[in-house]
Amino acid sequence: MENSYSNRIPEPCAVALFGVTGHLSRHKILPAFYDLFHRGLLPAGFALVGFARREWSREEFTEWAKGEIRENCRTDFKEGVFSLLAPHFYFCRGSFDEEERFEDLKREMEKASREQGAGGRKMFYLSIPPASFPKVIERLKGCGLADLNDPLQKVVIEKPFGWDLESAKDLDSLLSSAFSPSQIFRVDHYLGKEMVQNLLPLRFENPIFSALWSSKYVDHVEISMFETAGVEGRAGYYEKAGAARDVLQNHLMQLLALTAMERPEGGESAREKKIEVLKSCSIKDLKRTSARGQYASGFAEGRFVRGYRQEPGVDPLSLTDTFAALKVEVASPRWEGAPFYLRTGKRLDKRSAEVALVFRRPEAASPFAPAGQDSLVFKIQPDEGVWAEFESKAPGREILRDARMGFSYRSEFAEGSPEAYENLVLDAMLGDGSLFPSEEETELAWKITDELEEFWSLEPSTLEFYEAGSCGPLGAARLMERDGRKWRKM
Amino acid sequence: MENSYSNRIPEPCAVALFGVTGHLSRHKILPAFYDLFHRGLLPAGFALVGFARREWSREEFTEWAKGEIRENCRTDFKEGVFSLLAPHFYFCRGSFDEEERFEDLKREMEKASREQGAGGRKMFYLSIPPASFPKVIERLKGCGLADLNDPLQKVVIEKPFGWDLESAKDLDSLLSSAFSPSQIFRVDHYLGKEMVQNLLPLRFENPIFSALWSSKYVDHVEISMFETAGVEGRAGYYEKAGAARDVLQNHLMQLLALTAMERPEGGESAREKKIEVLKSCSIKDLKRTSARGQYASGFAEGRFVRGYRQEPGVDPLSLTDTFAALKVEVASPRWEGAPFYLRTGKRLDKRSAEVALVFRRPEAASPFAPAGQDSLVFKIQPDEGVWAEFESKAPGREILRDARMGFSYRSEFAEGSPEAYENLVLDAMLGDGSLFPSEEETELAWKITDELEEFWSLEPSTLEFYEAGSCGPLGAARLMERDGRKWRKM
Repeated sequence: MENSYSNRIPEPCAVALFGVTGHLSRHKILPAFYDLFHRGLLPAGFALVGFARREWSREEFTEWAKGEIRENCRTDFKEGVFSLLAPHFYFCRGSFDEEERFEDLKREMEKASREQGAGGRKMFYLSIPPASFPKVIERLKGCGLADLNDPLQKVVIEKPFGWDLESAKDLDSLLSSAFSPSQIFRVDHYLGKEMVQNLLPLRFENPIFSALWSSKYVDHVEISMFETAGVEGRAGYYEKAGAARDVLQNHLMQLLALTAMERPEGGESAREKKIEVLKSCSIKDLKRTSARGQYASGFAEGRFVRGYRQEPGVDPLSLTDTFAALKVEVASPRWEGAPFYLRTGKRLDKRSAEVALVFRRPEAASPFAPAGQDSLVFKIQPDEGVWAEFESKAPGREILRDARMGFSYRSEFAEGSPEAYENLVLDAMLGDGSLFPSEEETELAWKITDELEEFWSLEPSTLEFYEAGSCGPLGAARLMERDGRKWRKM
Repeated sequence: MENSYSNRIPEPCAVALFGVTGHLSRHKILPAFYDLFHRGLLPAGFALVGFARREWSREEFTEWAKGEIRENCRTDFKEGVFSLLAPHFYFCRGSFDEEERFEDLKREMEKASREQGAGGRKMFYLSIPPASFPKVIERLKGCGLADLNDPLQKVVIEKPFGWDLESAKDLDSLLSSAFSPSQIFRVDHYLGKEMVQNLLPLRFENPIFSALWSSKYVDHVEISMFETAGVEGRAGYYEKAGAARDVLQNHLMQLLALTAMERPEGGESAREKKIEVLKSCSIKDLKRTSARGQYASGFAEGRFVRGYRQEPGVDPLSLTDTFAALKVEVASPRWEGAPFYLRTGKRLDKRSAEVALVFRRPEAASPFAPAGQDSLVFKIQPDEGVWAEFESKAPGREILRDARMGFSYRSEFAEGSPEAYENLVLDAMLGDGSLFPSEEETELAWKITDELEEFWSLEPSTLEFYEAGSCGPLGAARLMERDGRKWRKM
C-alpha cells in the first residue's frame, strides 16, 4: 500500500498555494498546514508561498493568515507555535493573467526554497476554479516552474475533475503536459476523512472483518451520503453538475472502490486495486436500477425551506438532480451476486454518510420469527465509527430484537481525529497517492456517470420531486423494492 | 431447539419446594417465582408448596416468604402483586426423616392442585444437600408422589451432580428410578444467565457471528470464570470438591459445549448437539496442558486476606485446588487446530466470566508493526454483553492500535435482565431442557474431570500456590506459553 502505514515526516518542500485567499484555503488548507506543524509533522525545510492579487507585504500576508488559522485550526491555536511557523510563510502578489508575476513567483519559490532548505522540492496547490487550470498550468510551464522532467515537483488539484469523461480527459492531458502521473494529487476530500483512511486497515488487518467481506455472507452493500443542506449559493456550479456529478462520480465511486477492492499483494498499490474494481463495475437497465430527484419545498433543518427551483441562481424549470441513486454491479468472484447501491442527495432528513455491508439472512430455518438483517456499518459522518447490527435474544423473552455494538471515534480516541485536509496535505507531501484518485480512476468513474447522465437526459421524466426533509424520491425506494430489498434508515 | 424460542406461559403446575428455608430458596428460588408472576409468566393454575421443619401455619409461611421475596426480588416488590400471588402458596411441615410427612405433603399437593387447577402436574424442586437426595426420592416414590409412569411430573435438582463419574452414575440411577430423563432438570445456574441463553441465538441467527465461528478464523477459544471471593464458609463442601469439580466440570464444560456445538437441524435438540461436542473432547499430556493452584494470603477485595489453608474448616495441609486450568481439544472439522482453554479460580484479581474467541492473525504480511489479535468476547459477568476487539488505524497516525466495539446489556436493554433463576424455573416449568445438562452430558464432563483429578492425585507436586488477588499460578501462564499463546487479561 505504497508505504502508507508507516510514520513519516515529509521531505522538505516549498508549496505554492494558488487561491490562497479563497474559502477552501482559509477554512481548510492554511489551517491544515498549521495543524500539521503543531503536530510536528511538517519538515524543517518547509515553505509556503501564497499567491494572490492582494497588495500585501510578506508580513501582512502572514498576519492575515494567522487570523484565518486562529479561526479555523483544529488543534489549539498557540501564539508560540504560530510564531515558529510564520517564518516559513512567503507571499507573491499576482493574478493568473499576469505572465510576469509567475517570474516573481519563481524567484520567491527559489528564495523560499533556499532560505528554508527545501532542496528544490516544489508543490503547486491549485485551489482555484477549474476554468483557471489551463492558464495557470501554461504559465507554470512557461516560466519553467513546472517542468515535466523535474521529479521533485508535485501538483495538487481540487475537484471537479471535469464535467464528463471528455472534459476530464482534456484536464488530464493538460496536467500530464506538465506533470507525470505520480506527481498529480487529485483531492477527493472524502478520502481524507479518518474513517475512510481506516477502511483498508480495518478490512485487511482484522480477520473479524476480512472473513465477512464477500458475497458469501454479504447480501449487498449500501453507500450513502445524505446532506440536509440545500444548494447554498453554489447554484452556478451545481446547475451544471447535479448530485451524480457532484458526489456519486467521485466520493461514492471511490468509497465503492475502497470497499470492493482486493488486498494489494507484493508491490501492488491500492490505486491499482481500485482501478481493477472500477473496471469491473457495470450498470444496466437504468430505468429499473437508477433514480434521480430534485428537492421541492418542505421542512428541513428545523424550518420551512424553498425548493431547488426557487433557489437563487437556479433555472425555474431546472432538471438538475439534487438526488441520485444507482445500482452498480461489480464483476468479481468476491462480489458475485452482491450488488452495490449508491445514493446521495441534498435536503434530506439527515446529514450522514456511511458504507454499510448488509448480510444475507441465516440459511437454516430459524425457530424465531423472521429477523432483521445483520449489517456492518462504517459511519463516515457525522459521528465517525464502526457499528455492527445484529439480532439478540431479548432479555427474559424468547424473541429476537435488534442490537448493535459500536465503536465511535469520539468516545474511543480521546485525541480527536485530524481534519480530512490534514491527512490529504500530509499524504500529498509524502508522495503517497493511495487515497487520491488517479487519472484512470477518475476517467473510469466518469464513464459510468456519463452512461447514467446520458440515460437521464434521454428520459427527462425520470426526474421526481421529493419534499425537502424527506429521505428522497419514491423512485429510490422502488429501485430497491424491485430487488426485494430496502434501503437502510440513515 | 426444542421450541425454546417462542413465548409461552407454562402449563398449570403444583411445585413442591424442598429446602424452602435454605439460602438458595430465600435468595433465588422464591424471588424467581415472584418475579415470574410479576412478569405475567406463571400460569393461573400455579401452586407452590413449601416443605420445611418449621412449625408454621400456611399464613405464617406466606408472611415469611413475603419478607424474603421483598428483600431479594429483582423486579419491584409490590404489595398488590404479592397479594395476588399469596393464595398460590401452601405449606407442609415435615423433615426428610418422617415418612408420614410425605403423606401430608401428598395431601397438600393434591389440595393445592385441586384448588388452583394444576391438573395433576407436579414439580419437585430439590434445593437440598446431595446427601438427602436418596432419602427424599425414596419417600416421594414410597408415598406415590413420584411415579415413573406419571408423565406430568418433573424434578429439579441443584449441583453438585456427584463427585466423580461413579457417584454421578449412582445419582442418575437413583433419579431414573423415579423419573424419566425428560422429566429431570439439573440446574447449572450459569446456563440461566441471559448472556449464556443468548449464545445460541447470537451464534445461529447472525451471519456476522456464524461466519467467524470456526478454526478457519479462530486461533483458540478461552473460557474463563474468575472469582475474587474465597471459599466463604463453604469449606466442608469445597475441601472435597476443588475448583475443577466445582466449576470446570459443570459451568466451563457447558460453556464449551454451547460454544463448540453444531446447529441443531430438523428435529435435533441442543442437548444432542452438546453431547456430540462432549464426546469429541479430549485432554492429553496433562503435565503440559493443565495447571492447578491454591490461593495463599494476599490482597484481594481491597484488604489483606488469609490463604486457603488458613480458612476455617480447611485442612492446614489441604491439597485442594482453588484454581484449575485445562486445555481441551475438540475433534471436529469446525475446531480442527483451535483448542479450548478453560480456567477458573477463587481469590483472583477480578470477578469476571467470559467466552472469548481469539482470532488468527492476518495471513498476509502487514505493512504495520505486529498487531494484536482480534477477539470476540461474550461477557457473562459482571457486565453482560458482547465485545469485538480489533485493530484500528490511530487517528492521524499511520499505526494500528487496539479498538473495541461492544454492546452491553446494561446500556442496550433498558428493561434489565432476568435473574438466572427466573430463566431456569421458567424453562423447567415449560419442560424446555435445552439449558439443563442431561445425564449424559454430566457424565461425559465427569469423565474428563476424573481424568484430570486422577492425574493430579498422582502428581501432588502440580499444586502451586498463588497470591490472593493475582491472576492465578504461574503454571497457567506456562501452559499457554508452551503453545505460543497468552491468556487474555480479564
